[in-house]
Amino acid sequence: MNRTEEIKYWHTSSHILAHAVKRLFPEVKLGTGPAIEKGFYYDFYREKPFTPEDLKIIEQEMGRIIKSDFPIERIRKSKKESREILKDEIFKLEILEELQDGEITFYKQGDFIDLCEGPHLESTGQVKHYKLLSTASSYWRGDENRESMQRIYGISFPEKNELDAYLNFIEEAKERDHRVLGTKLDLFSIHPEFGSGLIYWHPKGAIIRKIIEDFWKEIHLQNGYELVYTPHIADIALWDKSGHTGFYKENMFAPIEMENKRFQLKPMNCPFHILIYNNRMRSYKELPIRWAELGTVYRYEKQGVLHGLLRVRGFTQDDAHIFCTEQQAEEEVIKILDLTCFFLRRFGFTDYKVCLSTRPAKYVGTPENWEKATNALKNALKTKGIEYETDPGEGVFYGPKIDIKVKDCLNREWQCSTIQVDFNIPERFDVKYTGPEGNFKVPILIHRAIFGSMERFIGILIEHYKGNFPFWLAPEQLRILPITDRHMSYAEQVKKLLEKEFRVQIDLRNEKISRKVRDAEAEKVPYMLILGNRELEKQEVSLRKHKEGMVGSFKVSDLVTMLKDTGQS
Amino acid sequence: MNRTEEIKYWHTSSHILAHAVKRLFPEVKLGTGPAIEKGFYYDFYREKPFTPEDLKIIEQEMGRIIKSDFPIERIRKSKKESREILKDEIFKLEILEELQDGEITFYKQGDFIDLCEGPHLESTGQVKHYKLLSTASSYWRGDENRESMQRIYGISFPEKNELDAYLNFIEEAKERDHRVLGTKLDLFSIHPEFGSGLIYWHPKGAIIRKIIEDFWKEIHLQNGYELVYTPHIADIALWDKSGHTGFYKENMFAPIEMENKRFQLKPMNCPFHILIYNNRMRSYKELPIRWAELGTVYRYEKQGVLHGLLRVRGFTQDDAHIFCTEQQAEEEVIKILDLTCFFLRRFGFTDYKVCLSTRPAKYVGTPENWEKATNALKNALKTKGIEYETDPGEGVFYGPKIDIKVKDCLNREWQCSTIQVDFNIPERFDVKYTGPEGNFKVPILIHRAIFGSMERFIGILIEHYKGNFPFWLAPEQLRILPITDRHMSYAEQVKKLLEKEFRVQIDLRNEKISRKVRDAEAEKVPYMLILGNRELEKQEVSLRKHKEGMVGSFKVSDLVTMLKDTGQS
Repeated sequence: MNRTEEIKYWHTSSHILAHAVKRLFPEVKLGTGPAIEKGFYYDFYREKPFTPEDLKIIEQEMGRIIKSDFPIERIRKSKKESREILKDEIFKLEILEELQDGEITFYKQGDFIDLCEGPHLESTGQVKHYKLLSTASSYWRGDENRESMQRIYGISFPEKNELDAYLNFIEEAKERDHRVLGTKLDLFSIHPEFGSGLIYWHPKGAIIRKIIEDFWKEIHLQNGYELVYTPHIADIALWDKSGHTGFYKENMFAPIEMENKRFQLKPMNCPFHILIYNNRMRSYKELPIRWAELGTVYRYEKQGVLHGLLRVRGFTQDDAHIFCTEQQAEEEVIKILDLTCFFLRRFGFTDYKVCLSTRPAKYVGTPENWEKATNALKNALKTKGIEYETDPGEGVFYGPKIDIKVKDCLNREWQCSTIQVDFNIPERFDVKYTGPEGNFKVPILIHRAIFGSMERFIGILIEHYKGNFPFWLAPEQLRILPITDRHMSYAEQVKKLLEKEFRVQIDLRNEKISRKVRDAEAEKVPYMLILGNRELEKQEVSLRKHKEGMVGSFKVSDLVTMLKDTGQS
Repeated sequence: MNRTEEIKYWHTSSHILAHAVKRLFPEVKLGTGPAIEKGFYYDFYREKPFTPEDLKIIEQEMGRIIKSDFPIERIRKSKKESREILKDEIFKLEILEELQDGEITFYKQGDFIDLCEGPHLESTGQVKHYKLLSTASSYWRGDENRESMQRIYGISFPEKNELDAYLNFIEEAKERDHRVLGTKLDLFSIHPEFGSGLIYWHPKGAIIRKIIEDFWKEIHLQNGYELVYTPHIADIALWDKSGHTGFYKENMFAPIEMENKRFQLKPMNCPFHILIYNNRMRSYKELPIRWAELGTVYRYEKQGVLHGLLRVRGFTQDDAHIFCTEQQAEEEVIKILDLTCFFLRRFGFTDYKVCLSTRPAKYVGTPENWEKATNALKNALKTKGIEYETDPGEGVFYGPKIDIKVKDCLNREWQCSTIQVDFNIPERFDVKYTGPEGNFKVPILIHRAIFGSMERFIGILIEHYKGNFPFWLAPEQLRILPITDRHMSYAEQVKKLLEKEFRVQIDLRNEKISRKVRDAEAEKVPYMLILGNRELEKQEVSLRKHKEGMVGSFKVSDLVTMLKDTGQS
């Protein structure tokens, strides 16, 4: 189905759902029931939530309505007639009052009629395969001061295999939920009572983050970047100068008032890098300057949109700013694209969706500069042979940009990398360099992030890997499982040989080996080294691989060589 | 001189200074003139600042007063008599009004008389060797709404060699000033117009910080610590619970008000680590737990006390919290002392002043627990054979502590490391673990920092090293100096061979080799590699060491081996 067909299909499904609910629970009042990105829902006003048993009965009733194959009819009514039809539906009446007379339409199927703009399928029988998925509570019109509604989510498809595939996908996605795995694997926690959207990294999550950050810094240094560190707050004067207090206020935390000063928690790192640049005069000979920072920024998001590591209020951008001449811009963008692909591939992301956003209606800078910058981005994409879509007019007001979404192993798209040209900041901060003739010139300023944020990227990785981190990222790479206490001192010896190169632990518990293996499997440790009498005698270890089982017996020195190769891959 | 003698000596010197100023500039009004930690000052009210020429004349006049050897006389006066004596000294009159009748004393020498409590030397001739050092402006009584005063600083000693040594020390300290070197070597900047006390690390400073941080993390992981990361803000509820809003409020930034919530920028990391600990039940088998974080905290300091990297408003603590059983506490403190000495020695600090602070009058926890904890600290110091002083009653209210000051190469003491037991936090957060019998027990909580803060420690290092960072810390370890353009491609080859192991740059400028050497020396690059015809022909490089000159000619491969050894030392 294309999007138009999907909307019809799912919107009709939601009416069938409401029709079934009204037949079974006539006292329920109807809210609204749209098609959504994937599937549909309907909101009902009812004291009690619907139970899983209720959903089963509703599903059966939906089956009857589909089987009846009621024609779906569009009916135009006057406001007065509408009021009569909806007299028992207080929520529908509220919507009705906001509509203009003459534009009011209903959709009718059998004895069910609903205030609705459409579009819909032609009859209920056209919906073939469906499933109610879950319930949730929601506020009427999303307003927490209004009535609490009971929402039922569902999905439907013309073909059975489509429904099965989607249900599998949901099941798979549920098992990969980074919030569930994050707790189960002891990676991080959130403490809403002390501030929502703020991440506490536990040791196992922190070591993953450290490995990625070290790798990020190492590769950046190798690629001609320099590191900087900047504060998390600045006087509001800086944000007035950068313009953020004007155009970015709604995303910012409120200022901190101290004596006669106001300090602002940073939502971005850019103005700080500019202050370092402007700290002394720069010459064309120094360009390109590439400054990278793992800069933690704070943006105020509404409670309701926060979601684990993926949508938070404090996050660490893998940020960089590049100052270059106009002539260098295209080459710099090519280098950024190379670096981006290098990093994303390291995590198994090989499929991207790339989007170029061009000049919007409201913009700063000259049309000529926009065109030059947009061409630099385009030419770089062309040179690298990267396919992309263009979003005309969707650039930020300060410059054109390239956005890169990665596709994970469930084929879900995640926005990560971004490359943006900025005409606003250089102008506001009078950023310049001296050219070969001693004259002042304005450099091109490029912002870029590859992971986007450490929090979000690791959230994506948890789901992508299903918590089975590859060897180089696994918090605990090896676990030594001595079969009995008699093998403990050999276990200590083996650990000593391995711990310089790897993150290795011994399971010291007085448990059966089967239990030790089961727990190591559950904790997703990539390799288990089992030590018993035979291993002790032959001075070897038996290697077991997570999810794959026994690999064989090895001398420890051979194991080191073997695992070091694994670490590279 | 002991401290009592110093105070007499310097206080008398300040009167001689004031006496001289009144002789030369009779219109000047007197403020106050105390002995300070090192030397003395006197504040005068005068429109114009004193010039360096004024200071010379004043010094000469002081010489005459000393030569006259006026006896110094203590005189008691009534308030009424005092008012008459001080009728032209408006600032002295202000002080006079705050004094009780009957306790008012003056000190008189020749025709100079000053409202003063003393003590003083017996005659002006007892001051032997003196020097006026500098001028500064200050506010009357430190109040920025009051009159602006002209302050003159001076120093004096009984022996000439003492004065010479002190003047040398000042000269040396001035040359080591981390604020001056920080700018000269392009390490960091501060931008007071956008917030005082906030540090911007430039690439060369940032790489030093990164090297130290990487080293710190590496060694901590090797020593049984785990890393965590925590947010920079939390709901004020957390700080109410920890007690910081009560006992630490004056050091904290004001809260950020958002909707119906208040967020607080963190002044400490402790409560965050506690939330991670309390995230699940802990068993005695897991203890000791050692969690380390380079946690950036923000504390509000008055503008006037801020000082470069040494006293700031935002700084990164090299923080750690250890949760252990009572039995483990002493062993843990020993391990911390070992780790501390290991780290400090790595930076050339081998001389420490160690202080143990015991239970103050106001405290939390039981006297028995204080005694146990204090004994654990004492025994650990004893076991390590570390000499220490005891500061009775100087512990923080929440527990006893060990403070370690390092002595730098000018013999100046710098407070860096601290080891503190905390009885407050475990009680407030109900921190516990299950013991071997399944019963709940309260762990011992130890806070500790080794460097104190990254900002302060690097500030100390800059002064300690005078900017001549040792090879392993130098931002640029090697600079290749091609003698002419003809040696450029050889320079590139050499760079390729070296850059995997070292931070190396080529001086690409079209300058004479003497200029290139001079600039590399000024920028304190540890090694210069000079490449000319002879080097190209023999495929060698000529090695020059910073401040020491030519070392000899080497094959690049031999150089790598040699410099790698240097990197370890």
